[in-house]
Amino acid sequence: MYRKQAESGYDCWLEYRHIENASLRENYLKRCASLAIIGGSPLLRTAGRELAHAISSMLGENPKDEAVTLIDAGAKGTIIVGTYGSSRLLEPLADVYRFDELGEEGYIIHASEDDCIYLSAASDKGVLYAVFHFIRLLQTGQSIESLRICEVPRNGLRMINHWDNMDGSIERGYAGKSIFFKDGRFIPDMSRIRDYARLLASVAINAVTINNVNVHRQESRLITDEFLPDVAKAAAIFRDYGIRLYLSVNFASTIEIGGLNTADPLDPDVTAWWKEAAANIYRYIPDFGGFLVKADSEFRPGPFTYGRNHADGANMLADAVAPFGGAVIWRCFVYNCLQDWRDRKTDRARAAYDHFMPLDGLFRDNVMLQIKNGPMDFQVREPVSPLFGGLTQTNQLLELQITQEYTGQQRHLCYLVPQWKEVFDFDTYARGERSTIAEVASGRLFGRESGGIAAVSNIGDDRNWTGHVLAQANWHGYARLAWDPGLSAEQLASEWIRMTFGLAAEPERVVKDMLLSSYDIYEAYTAPLGVGWMVNPNHHYGPNVDGYEYSKWGTYHYADCHGMGVDRTVRSGTGYAGQYHGPVVERYESLADCPDELLLFFHHVPYAHVLKSGKTVIQHIYDAHFGGADRAAELVAKWDSLASRIDADRFGQVRERLVHQAEHACEWRDMINTYFYRKSGIADEQGRVIY
Amino acid sequence: MYRKQAESGYDCWLEYRHIENASLRENYLKRCASLAIIGGSPLLRTAGRELAHAISSMLGENPKDEAVTLIDAGAKGTIIVGTYGSSRLLEPLADVYRFDELGEEGYIIHASEDDCIYLSAASDKGVLYAVFHFIRLLQTGQSIESLRICEVPRNGLRMINHWDNMDGSIERGYAGKSIFFKDGRFIPDMSRIRDYARLLASVAINAVTINNVNVHRQESRLITDEFLPDVAKAAAIFRDYGIRLYLSVNFASTIEIGGLNTADPLDPDVTAWWKEAAANIYRYIPDFGGFLVKADSEFRPGPFTYGRNHADGANMLADAVAPFGGAVIWRCFVYNCLQDWRDRKTDRARAAYDHFMPLDGLFRDNVMLQIKNGPMDFQVREPVSPLFGGLTQTNQLLELQITQEYTGQQRHLCYLVPQWKEVFDFDTYARGERSTIAEVASGRLFGRESGGIAAVSNIGDDRNWTGHVLAQANWHGYARLAWDPGLSAEQLASEWIRMTFGLAAEPERVVKDMLLSSYDIYEAYTAPLGVGWMVNPNHHYGPNVDGYEYSKWGTYHYADCHGMGVDRTVRSGTGYAGQYHGPVVERYESLADCPDELLLFFHHVPYAHVLKSGKTVIQHIYDAHFGGADRAAELVAKWDSLASRIDADRFGQVRERLVHQAEHACEWRDMINTYFYRKSGIADEQGRVIY
Repeated sequence: MYRKQAESGYDCWLEYRHIENASLRENYLKRCASLAIIGGSPLLRTAGRELAHAISSMLGENPKDEAVTLIDAGAKGTIIVGTYGSSRLLEPLADVYRFDELGEEGYIIHASEDDCIYLSAASDKGVLYAVFHFIRLLQTGQSIESLRICEVPRNGLRMINHWDNMDGSIERGYAGKSIFFKDGRFIPDMSRIRDYARLLASVAINAVTINNVNVHRQESRLITDEFLPDVAKAAAIFRDYGIRLYLSVNFASTIEIGGLNTADPLDPDVTAWWKEAAANIYRYIPDFGGFLVKADSEFRPGPFTYGRNHADGANMLADAVAPFGGAVIWRCFVYNCLQDWRDRKTDRARAAYDHFMPLDGLFRDNVMLQIKNGPMDFQVREPVSPLFGGLTQTNQLLELQITQEYTGQQRHLCYLVPQWKEVFDFDTYARGERSTIAEVASGRLFGRESGGIAAVSNIGDDRNWTGHVLAQANWHGYARLAWDPGLSAEQLASEWIRMTFGLAAEPERVVKDMLLSSYDIYEAYTAPLGVGWMVNPNHHYGPNVDGYEYSKWGTYHYADCHGMGVDRTVRSGTGYAGQYHGPVVERYESLADCPDELLLFFHHVPYAHVLKSGKTVIQHIYDAHFGGADRAAELVAKWDSLASRIDADRFGQVRERLVHQAEHACEWRDMINTYFYRKSGIADEQGRVIY
Repeated sequence: MYRKQAESGYDCWLEYRHIENASLRENYLKRCASLAIIGGSPLLRTAGRELAHAISSMLGENPKDEAVTLIDAGAKGTIIVGTYGSSRLLEPLADVYRFDELGEEGYIIHASEDDCIYLSAASDKGVLYAVFHFIRLLQTGQSIESLRICEVPRNGLRMINHWDNMDGSIERGYAGKSIFFKDGRFIPDMSRIRDYARLLASVAINAVTINNVNVHRQESRLITDEFLPDVAKAAAIFRDYGIRLYLSVNFASTIEIGGLNTADPLDPDVTAWWKEAAANIYRYIPDFGGFLVKADSEFRPGPFTYGRNHADGANMLADAVAPFGGAVIWRCFVYNCLQDWRDRKTDRARAAYDHFMPLDGLFRDNVMLQIKNGPMDFQVREPVSPLFGGLTQTNQLLELQITQEYTGQQRHLCYLVPQWKEVFDFDTYARGERSTIAEVASGRLFGRESGGIAAVSNIGDDRNWTGHVLAQANWHGYARLAWDPGLSAEQLASEWIRMTFGLAAEPERVVKDMLLSSYDIYEAYTAPLGVGWMVNPNHHYGPNVDGYEYSKWGTYHYADCHGMGVDRTVRSGTGYAGQYHGPVVERYESLADCPDELLLFFHHVPYAHVLKSGKTVIQHIYDAHFGGADRAAELVAKWDSLASRIDADRFGQVRERLVHQAEHACEWRDMINTYFYRKSGIADEQGRVIY
């Protein structure tokens, strides 16, 4: 299980490298000489094993295994691990912390004056998280002398969605094949799933779907007796790490596998079929999380076929799993994907809001609507979805995309935490100021019981999980933000670098600079000013300005020889801007107030329009693309400066991708610049080469 | 073998429908009462069977089988079939015809005053062709009273190239899967190959390659003992119909299947390997035609790898097959397919000439260079390849494309005979006036022994062979032109319609009009004025103006807000125009003289440039596209007028495709017009809707 494979990247941020600084190591050892694990539940066993491994690996000594009785006698330098109430020894903590407020997942980390460290919680899952948190403190070189940490997750559900198909392919996967499936079945050796679960637990992910939201024929049968024994095995592995397994289901299962001729959610046969299907799943997996559903979207079946709405569909499934404590997660990625490009009135950006707002309040309590961060589809830059702040009586999940579909496909470096931070921090004004997306998604703003964050995974069976070693930082960063959106990108970058590459200052300085600048760089050399798309159709890699311009997907830039952009104002456009709350509407509606980076998302402007930056739109395009490509090239030079400080394997892996990125950024630069130069006829002020 | 499957389209032009006109039938019967087949070679047996079947099917009576002795006694109304010299009965023909000038394939058809008809030739293959010609006379309702026909093919090699892969797929195939291969092997039941050979023989095709010029791993092994028994079976079927089988081979076979580590054509091991490989093939197939080779093109291996040239490569293979009478056909489709779109100096159009002209005269006598009709790749409109008229000391084959890769993929109606006629009739001025491509390709102009025509097949395992029933006319028309490029498009259309749909006047009038206008219509609504491309990459279907503009394929239009087109003049462009002979150079070099339809192939002009037609370029684009789409819609109406005159099956098949074409033509119209309106900013004079 604990293979030492750091150099391939397999261990990710859990390499537990030996701490070279002797005084730091001594200092840690003083408090980590013994371990006392109180209780023997699976999660506590997981926690104990991990802690023992981490300490022996990082500090070079196997900690003594202390019996509880010894501890009672007051041994110094012991880590005491257990749930509150399980030992008298933990009772003094109640004077400092409110265990009743920790919930199922919160925890405390406490350093006593006698050099003991307490990792405790109200539940064993909280204890597991406390252990990983404590390990992280050691990995990142923090002082552990006067710890007074009390953590409660800001989001109840912290989920990863896999878009894995049972043939082993991964939709939008850029790091190899599925770790779950191959040739239409589960991979018999599930040891990699265990290694994966451990990585997830270390960053407190508590839910996972293992199959693609586009549920094809074979995957439809995951909820049948044919595959449930295997699903149960996978669920048991995740359970050991505090993670509940969910499945994506086919809304038309009653037809595909149920032998019915309808999937009408109000049909009694359909209802009955799903109730039995759910009951059967729970016979195999008592803590099964529930269903994730993509319905009536991109050719997937759904309730529309039967004249029903999304609430009818979601509630029917919700009623089936409710008796067992299950949930239904219903995606809001619904739009007309057979739009006529000639039609400028239909606006895909409006679709989710138009579909779901009328249904607010009609969903069961165990339904969550999963809403992509933006109204389009994970572009490098979009405004936030107006459903956040729009819906007030419906549980919501914010959906992010870790896999870099439109952001370089893990061949380009693009650290997405800064993007996600902007999403979390966006103020919807739904209840006045500080009505941030973070507050909405968690459920706090509108007092919803359920809420949280889901994201599309970026891992596959590549040895290093994510293809690009540095893309591990997105996986880590997502999970950490899901726990606490208040963490900063700087904090998370530093944390990940130390855990991954060690405590040396120079790698941290350089890689942090690379990570934190990468999103801005990627945005600079790709589609400008929020207009999005401009990628090759289908696979979505590489520049193609008109790639989606004359297509059915509702994704246009409307560039002509005079200007470009999509008028989404209420005044003269599609009215999309009106889906937000007052101050936001005003900001986006106004050409003067609209932020530069979203200008072309909301307005159609001439190339000579002057941005807040003082540049014209066309000059901005040129400058951003020349600058972006230059900065992409600099990433290679920066990485090269670490040649002697990073192991050869990972150094080489990353370098190869950075070199490709630098070349590909030139392709982006030249194609975008040439396109707009040819179209506008306006020369670059600096006379640089455009073709 | 003679399944009556007319309504599915399976029988193509050999349906042999009963002649309904009683007096015509009587007239025919008078001369077709008996058959005398002199001799029993396989080809003569084929000929006899076919003739008996045709007569019984069309005239409703089984002709009496006359023994030669009876004929000698002077029976009236007998068709006498045999090679000259095989019977005293044929001797009088020598007074009228010069049998020594007929060669291996020429034939005579002679009606005597005693109502006998003589179908004779110097060889049994000629007799077979005479039989099919005679049948065609009956099918098309010609008088057979005073026949004095003497035919000699204008081209020695009349070949069909299949781009079939052994997995059953067909590269650029639009009519189903391969009739030869499936799942990596030959299809065991070869009866469809026999039906196919019969159709080919009926139009005098005498050579066929059955596998893709892109020879992949499995296909490389067709020349090994693993597959040669099956190749030999197929060859035997074709042999019964006078057709020689060739194979496409992998230039790197010595490495892929030969166990050598080189494919250097001057390496003795390589030479020896190929000599033995050839000898082995001829052990299985004594009349094996030879090799077709695509080398150093689009990632295929070739002699360049070893610092050798195309002559080195071709001659090495030619020497291997020469002892057995085999030939090597070497494709000239060689260009840099990793071009940088930024580079305006490199011109793909120049490539074939630049590569092969320096090698003129260096090829063995049993090598033929196969040259695509145009310098690019089977666009709807291209100039002819300047290698025709350039090369004077090298055998040449003209390569055409029957499969409609860029001309509507058999979903659009596009009768290509008019295009091919323009190619054949093009005057290269290589030896002064009347140095047409037809004269070059046949070998006559430069006194070459070998020459001819090859074309990429449009058939597959669709019931009707070609997907679009009317695309059978391209297959038929190609073969007939290969025999005689002097035939007109009108003649060939009429002939095909009568053979396919019968002798009724109205279907002939309507379908002929549809066929003959279809190329012009297709050109009108697709890429304008010879500039080409503007299709979706890879599959090449449907409009995409910038689809190849920023790619590596050397295929650009350079449209900007001022104008478009590729300057290929000597004066200011890539110099391509200089690859022709004097008068042609002058025509293309001059903006004033360059024909409108090729203007943008040779010149970059402003949108306001006035064409010979009196229209500006931009207005021409608008008018052509509005007009083309309108005319595509009219094709549906024209076809509908035949609803009661064409069988329901074929009527419906064609109608479905015409309806799609009409819709898709609107997509072309709107996308092209919108692109150029947005780019130029110039409005349509007629104010029609552009988006």
